[in-house]
Amino acid sequence: MQEHDEPRYAVGIDFGGTFIKMALVDDAGTIVARRRIPTATLPNRAAWMDAMAEGIHVLAREGRSARPAALSGVGIGVPGFVDFARGHIFELPNVPGWSGVPLASLMEERIGLPVRVDNDVNAMATGECTFGAGRTYQHAVFVTLGTGVGGALLIHNRIYRGAHHMAGELGHMTIDMNGVPAPNGRGGLEQYVGNRRIVERALRYLDEGRTSLLDALCEGDRSRIDPLLIEKAAEQGDPLSITVYDEVADCLAAALASVTYLLQPQAIIIGGGVGQSGPILYEPLHRHLRERLNINFADRLEIKKAALGNDAGVIGGAAMVLLE
Amino acid sequence: MQEHDEPRYAVGIDFGGTFIKMALVDDAGTIVARRRIPTATLPNRAAWMDAMAEGIHVLAREGRSARPAALSGVGIGVPGFVDFARGHIFELPNVPGWSGVPLASLMEERIGLPVRVDNDVNAMATGECTFGAGRTYQHAVFVTLGTGVGGALLIHNRIYRGAHHMAGELGHMTIDMNGVPAPNGRGGLEQYVGNRRIVERALRYLDEGRTSLLDALCEGDRSRIDPLLIEKAAEQGDPLSITVYDEVADCLAAALASVTYLLQPQAIIIGGGVGQSGPILYEPLHRHLRERLNINFADRLEIKKAALGNDAGVIGGAAMVLLE
Repeated sequence: MQEHDEPRYAVGIDFGGTFIKMALVDDAGTIVARRRIPTATLPNRAAWMDAMAEGIHVLAREGRSARPAALSGVGIGVPGFVDFARGHIFELPNVPGWSGVPLASLMEERIGLPVRVDNDVNAMATGECTFGAGRTYQHAVFVTLGTGVGGALLIHNRIYRGAHHMAGELGHMTIDMNGVPAPNGRGGLEQYVGNRRIVERALRYLDEGRTSLLDALCEGDRSRIDPLLIEKAAEQGDPLSITVYDEVADCLAAALASVTYLLQPQAIIIGGGVGQSGPILYEPLHRHLRERLNINFADRLEIKKAALGNDAGVIGGAAMVLLE
Repeated sequence: MQEHDEPRYAVGIDFGGTFIKMALVDDAGTIVARRRIPTATLPNRAAWMDAMAEGIHVLAREGRSARPAALSGVGIGVPGFVDFARGHIFELPNVPGWSGVPLASLMEERIGLPVRVDNDVNAMATGECTFGAGRTYQHAVFVTLGTGVGGALLIHNRIYRGAHHMAGELGHMTIDMNGVPAPNGRGGLEQYVGNRRIVERALRYLDEGRTSLLDALCEGDRSRIDPLLIEKAAEQGDPLSITVYDEVADCLAAALASVTYLLQPQAIIIGGGVGQSGPILYEPLHRHLRERLNINFADRLEIKKAALGNDAGVIGGAAMVLLE
């Protein structure tokens, strides 16, 4: 039995193409120490794993209050398809060289501690649902809005991975069956609200000759326009930018209404960069959801902004282990 | 303890606006006796319940091999919103007078046996997943194609009802965010593949002056055109009718692709009248699903035709009780 007044710790790892972010996290979800490893200089897979193993040892030492005996294990979130039960990576579409890798067992050999591996969005959702915006729910849907659009499902208080580990791909859900074609079907949400698509909406209006605060804010260099700049312009009352966010919110509402009719979660938790937007996104999102949902569904659904920001991945990685 | 060689029985009830269909079902899913009660002559709710109670007694007597002691209980599927845990009906949109009715406890008082109440589509899905097309799956999605389009979800071998009993409303999932408006949002699947919509597609082409076998098959009376007649014409090579089913299949594929990206079930089981169609529906459905799904999802998904036909509701009602 675990003594309840003795804190437990785990290392959470957010495994990205540019950086490996790591943190020592206690069982209240507090980050005790951090580490960030640039991956550019790591020549191969073994070097990545050695760097992670070293980072884990450094973190365990750095955490002043953490004694080695209290380190429960390591949880790693990776950007791709994973068999969580075996800790096996099938494929990381944007990180070459990691197809068919039994990462959990390879890392366990290196560090002698239990290692869990999951998809990065599932890791973030685990963080939010354990220590963040979702901690009071048993049934929730987690969505990340960024370059891509990802999702994860909490069902009966556990991440649901479907029959073959790949459930939760909210970004590929169709909002327009004859819409934008993509490798993952036609008219998927990601093709309408991914970062680049948001910028393209603004540029399209600008190209049509509409005037906008954006031209002043980007100082004449339209390549500097990003979702954050559009949000800034919208907050200053720029009609073009307000229109862009209203359109984005309606596309998101269409997909989230489908999710709600199908799963009826208690809450939908929205993370990722664009998820951190203010009322400029959330006001029209609520409005369009009400238009699209039967009142019995609308009245019973909460929309929450993710609470852990960029730390959701490392906190969630640790939570995977601490929850066991 | 239940003796394994002693068969158990339950009564399943499919509670509709025109008929109450009832059956005595054994624990292998076999119907032992049936009864059908027209509701037109039943003046009020008490009369409906009395008729059901009497039907249960008649069925228990009729089932020659069924001794009263072996009747485990009664499961009722109703067309509307239900709290399954309490056996409480919130509302039946198409059957007036049943809002806020604790049907399970009212029936238990009448018959002195355990009574379960669920939504009718959940009841059918329970039947298919226990004794029909879904009996080998732990994760499946059930969809009914008829006047309306309904759905139910099997997750970890149990019907999943969401946070507030209403999950599975596949017919309201958006396939075109700016499409046909309806009380349950814009562009919902039901507005494209419900029976009436299928007929409207055919009539639209006929009104445009296209020639079709349909005019001969309906003997000049276009009000007689229904999905079955269109299927018949399509099977005889009628291009208009083939086009109609291809369009219906693509709309269905758009919604089922979204469901698959979100939940990744092992199988999708298709019931209801139109679900009983032949290759004229299933060939284009498979084709469009392959176009719309990433190969990792497409290769791992089975599409199955429901196996219990019109008996799914009564068998499923009984299964609710026999499974406990």
